[in-house]
Amino acid sequence: MGETETQAVLHHGEKRATAAPEAPRSFAVADVVLRFLLFAAAVISVLVMVTSNEKKTFSVPLPTNPITLTEVTRTSKWRYSPAFVYFVVALSVAGIYSIITFLLALLALMKRSMPTKLLSHIIIMDVLLLGIVSAATGTAGAVGYLGLKGNTHTSWAKICNRYHKFCRHIGGSIVVSLIASVILVFLVLLNIYALSKRIPK
Amino acid sequence: MGETETQAVLHHGEKRATAAPEAPRSFAVADVVLRFLLFAAAVISVLVMVTSNEKKTFSVPLPTNPITLTEVTRTSKWRYSPAFVYFVVALSVAGIYSIITFLLALLALMKRSMPTKLLSHIIIMDVLLLGIVSAATGTAGAVGYLGLKGNTHTSWAKICNRYHKFCRHIGGSIVVSLIASVILVFLVLLNIYALSKRIPK
Repeated sequence: MGETETQAVLHHGEKRATAAPEAPRSFAVADVVLRFLLFAAAVISVLVMVTSNEKKTFSVPLPTNPITLTEVTRTSKWRYSPAFVYFVVALSVAGIYSIITFLLALLALMKRSMPTKLLSHIIIMDVLLLGIVSAATGTAGAVGYLGLKGNTHTSWAKICNRYHKFCRHIGGSIVVSLIASVILVFLVLLNIYALSKRIPK
Repeated sequence: MGETETQAVLHHGEKRATAAPEAPRSFAVADVVLRFLLFAAAVISVLVMVTSNEKKTFSVPLPTNPITLTEVTRTSKWRYSPAFVYFVVALSVAGIYSIITFLLALLALMKRSMPTKLLSHIIIMDVLLLGIVSAATGTAGAVGYLGLKGNTHTSWAKICNRYHKFCRHIGGSIVVSLIASVILVFLVLLNIYALSKRIPK
């Protein structure tokens, strides 16, 4: 019935799509793949961040007479910045969430359908998570940028000229969480399209 | 027809809602109101941020003999922090976007309907804007928090004990942009619900 309708419409040269009760199956596959990528991005981002701690030894002059040098060991830790703590929490939430929705998407792929109500709830949760993850990316990005460049106006000195490994990890983690945000945008886009496919025209 | 069907369904004790071709009119009204609030929040946030500049005069000792005090004038500007510049740009985009979609929502309210395609595109744009605004809130929040508390580990000194008006403005602006993010979440929630209302069950 839908088949002949499509052909009739195409025959008359109209561009209107016929009412499809479901989005194509490739949508469900893309959904599963994207959710797996989201999980991977969240896990990588958290792991790279929590392994960023770097211990460095500096030579510091002592105010003795004659002046002697002493060795001071300092450790740069992600836990020292509230921004990075929030980042790790947010990306961990994203990781756990992506496992749950990955399983739901896999179930929908096998059952060849997902209830409309569940689909719209998943979109809303995706949107909330997007807000959390992009805020975390911005937060960590702001502190990371200060670490890289410093700010002369507030005399906040950059620290990336001393802690190389630390900054490499932080930067990498932020880039991966940016990728996670983009994946979430694509997931929302895909599912809104899938939802609108169910609306008869 | 829908009325009697609903009653019949309710009579049989089933919880299934009847198929409605459109979301109730109150949704369109709420959409218009929320978009106006979003516009107000974006404008307030930008205005409070750009009026935050504060000039302060400090007494600084000069290394003369005898030591004399000299007056130094310093200005704290939002433009000095890349995070706040991004914040102002992002919230300005949100303000302009909210005017356009406010007019579209008003038009839909008067015409009593919005095409499904336009509605899904507006949801997707809302989601993108949510990403931008929440990232801006996070970015400005991270720098604002450093200004308020500083970070002893990186010896970034707090500046809010010297620039009170500046910090008040920054803080207020961040809170208002957080409200803008929440409004965007509600807008997406509302419109996804409106979209799913069009799906026959």
